[in-house]
Amino acid sequence: MPPLHTPAFFQQLVEKEIQHISLGSEPSSLYDPIRYMISLGGKRLRPALLLMSNELFGGDYTLSLQPALGIEVFHNFTLLHDDIMDKAPLRRAKSTVHQKWNQNIAILSGDTMFVKSCQLMTSVNPNHQQLSLDLFFKTAIEVCEGQQLDMDFEQQSSVSINEYIEMIGLKTAVLLACALQLGAIYANASEKDQLNIYRFGKNLGIAFQLQDDVLDVYGDEKKFGKQNSGDILSNKKTFLLLKAFETANGSTLHELSRWFSQADFDPTEKISAVKTIYDSLNIKQATEKEIEKYFYSSLENLKAVSAPNSQKIMLQALAIDLMKRDI
Amino acid sequence: MPPLHTPAFFQQLVEKEIQHISLGSEPSSLYDPIRYMISLGGKRLRPALLLMSNELFGGDYTLSLQPALGIEVFHNFTLLHDDIMDKAPLRRAKSTVHQKWNQNIAILSGDTMFVKSCQLMTSVNPNHQQLSLDLFFKTAIEVCEGQQLDMDFEQQSSVSINEYIEMIGLKTAVLLACALQLGAIYANASEKDQLNIYRFGKNLGIAFQLQDDVLDVYGDEKKFGKQNSGDILSNKKTFLLLKAFETANGSTLHELSRWFSQADFDPTEKISAVKTIYDSLNIKQATEKEIEKYFYSSLENLKAVSAPNSQKIMLQALAIDLMKRDI
Repeated sequence: MPPLHTPAFFQQLVEKEIQHISLGSEPSSLYDPIRYMISLGGKRLRPALLLMSNELFGGDYTLSLQPALGIEVFHNFTLLHDDIMDKAPLRRAKSTVHQKWNQNIAILSGDTMFVKSCQLMTSVNPNHQQLSLDLFFKTAIEVCEGQQLDMDFEQQSSVSINEYIEMIGLKTAVLLACALQLGAIYANASEKDQLNIYRFGKNLGIAFQLQDDVLDVYGDEKKFGKQNSGDILSNKKTFLLLKAFETANGSTLHELSRWFSQADFDPTEKISAVKTIYDSLNIKQATEKEIEKYFYSSLENLKAVSAPNSQKIMLQALAIDLMKRDI
Repeated sequence: MPPLHTPAFFQQLVEKEIQHISLGSEPSSLYDPIRYMISLGGKRLRPALLLMSNELFGGDYTLSLQPALGIEVFHNFTLLHDDIMDKAPLRRAKSTVHQKWNQNIAILSGDTMFVKSCQLMTSVNPNHQQLSLDLFFKTAIEVCEGQQLDMDFEQQSSVSINEYIEMIGLKTAVLLACALQLGAIYANASEKDQLNIYRFGKNLGIAFQLQDDVLDVYGDEKKFGKQNSGDILSNKKTFLLLKAFETANGSTLHELSRWFSQADFDPTEKISAVKTIYDSLNIKQATEKEIEKYFYSSLENLKAVSAPNSQKIMLQALAIDLMKRDI
């Protein structure tokens, strides 16, 4: 059996191919923002997962390139619209589309990207069309639901940890899972294998998002590429904050609540105080334990896939790198 | 041959069926706005056209109900996002979604409606899947392009009449054309018939939109359901205004330019003055002549369709009613 391609091979392939997807040229006010958004880069993780899964199950990955690009365009569409909703000024250290152009253009070029992703998703073997579109559209609905739950949580006074895991499962994890299952579908993998590779992606995605929460507070700013502790300043109901509220009592709970509700504060002071509370409650360790739980589940799911272990190494390596954030 | 169903039959059928499309329930902050938008009603013109075309070509319309609903959900998604971009407070005399909820919810529930429309579009005979999705997504892209051109025109100092016709062709007419062709595809109509029924819809759609421009200035406010002459007040580059700029010279052109560029004005005075200019240039007649041109072209396209004349009566009647705005 020939060795499978590395994650980096697929990521670079996608990075190259995505610059050449066919897009209209006029009106340029619609297509320039789309080209800009696509050119901002990123890990190209989702299409790489699709192609790796396809190769794992014996598929010819060159035949799945179009839907792989479709998944990436869809992902970028969600980022574009999320940036409007979050009023985010920056995306990958560059101006967001609504900032660089305007909000209306951002809404509409996002809509157009979504249509484009659908077009790419239909460039597959007709035998796989119905199943893969059903999965893709179901996932797209779930991603919207996840984003709405995320916005709802901002307004809710209390959110349970289960609700939070459900939300990140929808907003982040199902698209990774979908990409992996699509690759399996295009390779004619069994339903059981499709399910296992889907679960691998779902659990990995949850672990990945929880780690994002940790990195926001404890990550290396330079390596992680964004300012630390934005979540603390904005009172974002991350796993860490929810766990802290769940664990704290007495004067610690009182102090956490005070920082959470205080409108005027010194940012450095707030970050330092909340971190001290987190440390006193072992929140970092508790979150890392939760991450491990999901991460090991994902590795179990991958183990259950009916392919030689030697062939699963690439996906395993990607999962481990992802947890280290070395990619 | 049994008589075909009337436009009203299909419109009522769609009105009934669309209330029952399957939508999630949670988060309700996502699905309530979608149900609200769908419940606002409207003529249900596009799905009716799809079903009528399907029946004209000998199809069993009951098998095309899902994609017909898909076209209507897609149309409503475009209205929802257009309302955000236009900052419109009202839609069919009720609050718009971004007004009743908020902008983020309007963006996201619009996105979700688009996914829903795609799901409905895939509920067809697998033999028609590829062709019908290709047409639907091509059309969706064109509708976005049309909306972008419309926004671009607001900023452009000059717009030609040809550019304007191109824009309304994309923004409005291609979706009518697409609906009709989809009905033909599902009934296994010939490529030639598909083309003719598409052209019928495209020309009819352009005529319909031009008539909208006339009605905004000269329509019966009560019957038309919106305040007169909003286009004049907002300097909207309609066919009437572009034709007036093309036709006017000397002092008339000077006066028109003055009203067009003046920031402070009395609304009643501006409407009356611009109407007087339009009248002096016979703008209403010139526009009606253009409408007739497209309307008669559409009837020619319908004539070219290879179906018995007696069967084309229903589509003809719908087209005529549409021009009278009696429906």
